[in-house]
Amino acid sequence: MPSPSVLPDQESPGPDLDLARTLFVALHQIGFDGRGITRASYGDGENRAHLLFAETARQLGLEVRRDWAANLYMTMPGQDRTAPVVMTGSHLDSVPVGGNFDGAAGVVAGLSVLAGWCRAGYRPACDVTVMAIRAEESAWFPVSYIGSKAAFCLLTPADLAVVRRDTGRSLADHMAQAGGDPSAHAAGGLDAGRIACFIELHIEQGPVLIQTGTVVGIVSGICGSLRYRNVHVRGTYAHSGATPRAFRRDAVMGAVALTRRLHERWLEHESQGDEMTLTFGVFRTDPDQADFSTIAGDVELSIDVRSRDPQLLRQMGDEIEQVARAVEAQEGVSIDLGPRTGSTPARMDEGMCTALLDTLAPAMGLSATAMPSGAGHDTALFANQGIPTAMIFVRNANGSHNPDEAMEFDDFAAATALLGRLLHRQAGLDGRPRCVPSH
Amino acid sequence: MPSPSVLPDQESPGPDLDLARTLFVALHQIGFDGRGITRASYGDGENRAHLLFAETARQLGLEVRRDWAANLYMTMPGQDRTAPVVMTGSHLDSVPVGGNFDGAAGVVAGLSVLAGWCRAGYRPACDVTVMAIRAEESAWFPVSYIGSKAAFCLLTPADLAVVRRDTGRSLADHMAQAGGDPSAHAAGGLDAGRIACFIELHIEQGPVLIQTGTVVGIVSGICGSLRYRNVHVRGTYAHSGATPRAFRRDAVMGAVALTRRLHERWLEHESQGDEMTLTFGVFRTDPDQADFSTIAGDVELSIDVRSRDPQLLRQMGDEIEQVARAVEAQEGVSIDLGPRTGSTPARMDEGMCTALLDTLAPAMGLSATAMPSGAGHDTALFANQGIPTAMIFVRNANGSHNPDEAMEFDDFAAATALLGRLLHRQAGLDGRPRCVPSH
Repeated sequence: MPSPSVLPDQESPGPDLDLARTLFVALHQIGFDGRGITRASYGDGENRAHLLFAETARQLGLEVRRDWAANLYMTMPGQDRTAPVVMTGSHLDSVPVGGNFDGAAGVVAGLSVLAGWCRAGYRPACDVTVMAIRAEESAWFPVSYIGSKAAFCLLTPADLAVVRRDTGRSLADHMAQAGGDPSAHAAGGLDAGRIACFIELHIEQGPVLIQTGTVVGIVSGICGSLRYRNVHVRGTYAHSGATPRAFRRDAVMGAVALTRRLHERWLEHESQGDEMTLTFGVFRTDPDQADFSTIAGDVELSIDVRSRDPQLLRQMGDEIEQVARAVEAQEGVSIDLGPRTGSTPARMDEGMCTALLDTLAPAMGLSATAMPSGAGHDTALFANQGIPTAMIFVRNANGSHNPDEAMEFDDFAAATALLGRLLHRQAGLDGRPRCVPSH
Repeated sequence: MPSPSVLPDQESPGPDLDLARTLFVALHQIGFDGRGITRASYGDGENRAHLLFAETARQLGLEVRRDWAANLYMTMPGQDRTAPVVMTGSHLDSVPVGGNFDGAAGVVAGLSVLAGWCRAGYRPACDVTVMAIRAEESAWFPVSYIGSKAAFCLLTPADLAVVRRDTGRSLADHMAQAGGDPSAHAAGGLDAGRIACFIELHIEQGPVLIQTGTVVGIVSGICGSLRYRNVHVRGTYAHSGATPRAFRRDAVMGAVALTRRLHERWLEHESQGDEMTLTFGVFRTDPDQADFSTIAGDVELSIDVRSRDPQLLRQMGDEIEQVARAVEAQEGVSIDLGPRTGSTPARMDEGMCTALLDTLAPAMGLSATAMPSGAGHDTALFANQGIPTAMIFVRNANGSHNPDEAMEFDDFAAATALLGRLLHRQAGLDGRPRCVPSH
């Protein structure tokens, strides 16, 4: 660790972008599967990525530790080691055949900021920790936010017993193989009261920034969700030619009526200014029984509602029940909505959002816009622990969760500089002088 | 063969119902798969069923022959062997995990009639042939009416090269294994000019007779079809939460719009008195890529239109094209309708229909109603060769193509007696004395 120095107010040493480039290349080599990037939660790719970051952090002179779930913490010690810690970070796993940036960009950004501070000999007032979070992508285990939940000791024994889709082995088993200690899951987690804030940089995953020509999004809130992953619309299989309309109980037409009516509700809510999304990502007749000459007797579909407004999510739950009953009566089908799950919306810290939008981004000449996050992020878990949170979205083309995910390095560099300025504000100056000369 | 005798006008010797019961039991034993009946086209079950009927026919003293495609012909010689032959019959294959009656009932009925005639010492004026037709169920090979097409030498070399879905082996290969000779496919088929008529008894496969309390349906015509088996609606896969409505190209909502609009066209046609059915039996998001949290980029669906009216089928083809283009424009998806196939509607012989409805059924005190056949049958192929045809539907519960297919034996017995009277009318008396004393 170089000896600390003082920097002028509102100015942070720039991030180490050479390190960022090096890390992205190394991450690509680790995760490339021939088509895209695969770093399974608690799999070989994620493990190797964690080793890469731990080794890099050690070389920078940062403190490195792991918790029982093999989350990685890379800390630059502050002048006051007893002050609440400023945290940043994201996850290093990916969906199968995904891209290189979803998650990893946030860890690269955090470490690049600290590397820049090291290079400049800057030392913050309080500890600043970059966290590489485990297992954020729910493509692998049927539990959300595994790593951040584990960090706060919020995983249950039932959660630890779930199995990974591809291996069939338990989460606890995978954790142990990755160097964790699942027997220690009930104690010794992070203390929300000792965390000053958590800030996550992430690619947008949507088209809004690209299409509006904006480099970064400042997340106003993270949507909660209401989900019915396994809705079944059931009718009666019957010969397509031999069954007149009046005698049909057609599961496809029942499911079409359900989706259409719910979509109309979405339009109504939008016209009233309510902000939400509604998606039927899965809609399938039975692969074994469906045939072009048979009226379908079963359709499986999924319903995914997202909103920052918890009241609207509750209301949509009621409306989905009502519409399902109405469609049953009208179409002669039965509708089993199946288990209802969901997550709580999270509010971001107004002070940090305002600083980003009104002060820090304009000072850099950086285009920024406030926007909700429709996708869930570990930040939501931190926010719902009562920790002040912020998220910076970086524009990227082609969405996420696919090999075509594309973020321009210049956009990443600008967003990382913005992250550095916010970390600097929270961990040092900004009228609350935490950063003091050490010599 | 017992010596022939004369019977009074309009009276046919009753069918041999004990034989019918025995044959149904034997067919069940041959085809039972643990859950339903499986007699694959040119598979072991169909082959064994053909052997059963051939052996039974030989024991009755009938002439038995096979053609190059292993169709089976069981003939009672008439007084005049040069007169056009009266034919009846149906198919002996089934769909996978189907029922015991779809197809087989028609062959059992025909043989039971001839067995009754044998028992009574009755000999018709012309030859009467019961045909056990091969491979009617299109579940196995992607060609319709294989057996009856083969009988008229209408199968092409390309048809013979198609493969069975489960075995991957060619139709020609399967035919040869069943005792056929595919090299002889181009010559020696049936001569339509030498066939007086073809009559098929079949279970209804729909709910109309059950729900209207009618024992038999007299088929007024067999629907033709217009089919798009592989429509693809394509949009863009995108994150369900991160993609606002205005930025979506949602394949599910595109496909919902397509099906809904076409269904509305059906209602309009019905309100104008047009008779048709419209079915989307397959509607599925991609099993590998679809996920509850992803907007779907691809939906595969099938469109099956059926009608007795060839003009209406043509019109629906135009309307499907128009609606697809309109949905593309409105929903921002692309729609690839894929190959368009279909079959020609077939008209039944008015004379035979009228005789069945106005004379023969009333004489037996049997409830009968005229109705279209929405399903295709080999009879359509005979009709479109210019042969006078008729079909008798027997009411059955639970449709067809499933293990719950259920026909009451009493209904079958009555329908078979009606078939016997019609065959008797066509092959003998009815003012056209073909049946003469032979001693």
